[in-house]
Amino acid sequence: MRIALDAMGGDFAPGPIVAGAVEAVLDREDLITVLVGDRERIEAELEKAPQAPRDRLPIVHAAEAIGMDEKPVEALRKKRDNSISRSWAMMAAGEVQAIVSAGNTGAMVASALFAGAHAKMFLPGVRRPGIAAIFPSHQGPIVIIDVGANMAPKPEDLYQYGLMGSIYAEEILGVTAPRIGILNVGSEEEKGNDLTRGTRKLFEESPWASRFVGNVEGRDIYEGHVRVVICDGFVGNVLLKAGEGAVDFLFATLREELARLLPEFPVEVGQKIAGSLMNLKRRFEYEEFGGAPLLGIRGACIICHGSSKSRAIKNALRVANLMAADRINAKIVEQLGATLDDAVDAPKS
Amino acid sequence: MRIALDAMGGDFAPGPIVAGAVEAVLDREDLITVLVGDRERIEAELEKAPQAPRDRLPIVHAAEAIGMDEKPVEALRKKRDNSISRSWAMMAAGEVQAIVSAGNTGAMVASALFAGAHAKMFLPGVRRPGIAAIFPSHQGPIVIIDVGANMAPKPEDLYQYGLMGSIYAEEILGVTAPRIGILNVGSEEEKGNDLTRGTRKLFEESPWASRFVGNVEGRDIYEGHVRVVICDGFVGNVLLKAGEGAVDFLFATLREELARLLPEFPVEVGQKIAGSLMNLKRRFEYEEFGGAPLLGIRGACIICHGSSKSRAIKNALRVANLMAADRINAKIVEQLGATLDDAVDAPKS
Repeated sequence: MRIALDAMGGDFAPGPIVAGAVEAVLDREDLITVLVGDRERIEAELEKAPQAPRDRLPIVHAAEAIGMDEKPVEALRKKRDNSISRSWAMMAAGEVQAIVSAGNTGAMVASALFAGAHAKMFLPGVRRPGIAAIFPSHQGPIVIIDVGANMAPKPEDLYQYGLMGSIYAEEILGVTAPRIGILNVGSEEEKGNDLTRGTRKLFEESPWASRFVGNVEGRDIYEGHVRVVICDGFVGNVLLKAGEGAVDFLFATLREELARLLPEFPVEVGQKIAGSLMNLKRRFEYEEFGGAPLLGIRGACIICHGSSKSRAIKNALRVANLMAADRINAKIVEQLGATLDDAVDAPKS
Repeated sequence: MRIALDAMGGDFAPGPIVAGAVEAVLDREDLITVLVGDRERIEAELEKAPQAPRDRLPIVHAAEAIGMDEKPVEALRKKRDNSISRSWAMMAAGEVQAIVSAGNTGAMVASALFAGAHAKMFLPGVRRPGIAAIFPSHQGPIVIIDVGANMAPKPEDLYQYGLMGSIYAEEILGVTAPRIGILNVGSEEEKGNDLTRGTRKLFEESPWASRFVGNVEGRDIYEGHVRVVICDGFVGNVLLKAGEGAVDFLFATLREELARLLPEFPVEVGQKIAGSLMNLKRRFEYEEFGGAPLLGIRGACIICHGSSKSRAIKNALRVANLMAADRINAKIVEQLGATLDDAVDAPKS
């Protein structure tokens, strides 16, 4: 398996990105990670890891890098030779089977859309790819899709997100027959807006009706009774980032509160509590899943958090490898094909 | 001051609702709380509080109560003599200056809209009332508006929510010149959708431009640099409920984690940690603000959480009293009037 890794993407790139690639290829002998970016800087990082199997860490030079805060479309147009576009071009050419990046999410998606338009990067029948984020719940990990690829989806898009998210939950997260719900402001049928009502109708008339549970309220997400929650990219993105903000705020407040108490406790008590908090915070960071898959494209693509450290990158490469090797895309095509005529007005490819 | 309290609204009504009313009137000698609902059941609760000043706790009978999960409009139509409609009718008739309810939020808003249409319950110039929720942040409480009154607002609505939220933050939360931002998926100007772009334009061309900071991302909410965050009611409602769900999930996980450790610790350590957690959780529950004000109506209205206990009801009555007594509505009318012609296409009243 060959995976393109955007070595320049992320708040701390290329250091932890290259380190994660080294860890990943050491872990899996059949994995080749193509490091895409500034050759000189990547070489410098690789020199810090003498144990690295260089034959499975080829470098593809890209002269430019898109910053985390740059405007995606503008940056892609101005910086033609950037590491993200280069990675997508390699996937379009069949030179890699997957892409991983902790860089500018907007640029990753826009580049996929460009590649999709020009080189048929979308899976047959897919209207528009969606980003699936993994959230924790009382029942284990759940999928929320879309969290930022599609700001103004149609019911048909959300229907496809439900199918794709469900297949991802089954194949990659190991959930049996995951239930699908629409994120909404209430559980009653007529709640929400035209998008939620239209999507509901599509599901109820589809072969997936038995997996579809209707509306899910924000507070029920973490219960985990519904393992695939679909929503438009605007709501999903706000939810994802607000969730991160809430967890950070809560842990900061908790640390303050405990810091006031800890001096009164024996040292080993303090250490145990601190360790316990760290464990807990990790459960919310999802480094184990490495990032959010962009579903609906040929090949596999994982978008990592900008602050990803080597562990997250390593895990993203592991999941990308799994996705590219798995039947997940074949299943998506099969299911979309089987239900397209019934429920979805898909563009002809 | 006379406030109508929906004695039948809430998961545990009427018990904690009536208890909160008793506490509130004992606390403030100038407060009269009209208990609206099933006279017999309210009497039974009042009998449990012999210290209650019955002259300041009059009962207005309503034969029916709208359930927490009932469809709002349908329920309002079917149950004509319900405690929510009765409360709004009293406010429309000038018999009370404020309303408090922990009941069905949708029914509260729909009833306000009906009252608004029929009895001019909206403040002059207000297009549509909005619900303001109070969130915690590193800088103190912030206002998020709208969290569920208006599922498909126009930029003009969001503009008004910014003004009203800002005045609320200043007058009731004591924030000096609160900054206003639009909840969005990125900080760049062109991010988001037509609603966010349109609202941005209105603010930039308005007399409030100096308070307006542009876009706020989900993860920045809790930083508190922006004290008034505006969004459509769908996103706001999802955000509010997902935030509750996240906090519940996090504390449940934290309790599990600490329960594993606690047996190893001395008893007093465990007690202190438990107390500390309780304090922290309370910071996220906002019982001190009692609930979310519905802004833009004549009089004051506080919508409390369905699970409100007597303390939350007491505080909601205190805040409703404050709002009804304050110049907040006069300021809203003044500011809308001053800026209406410039920026907002308001309906003529």
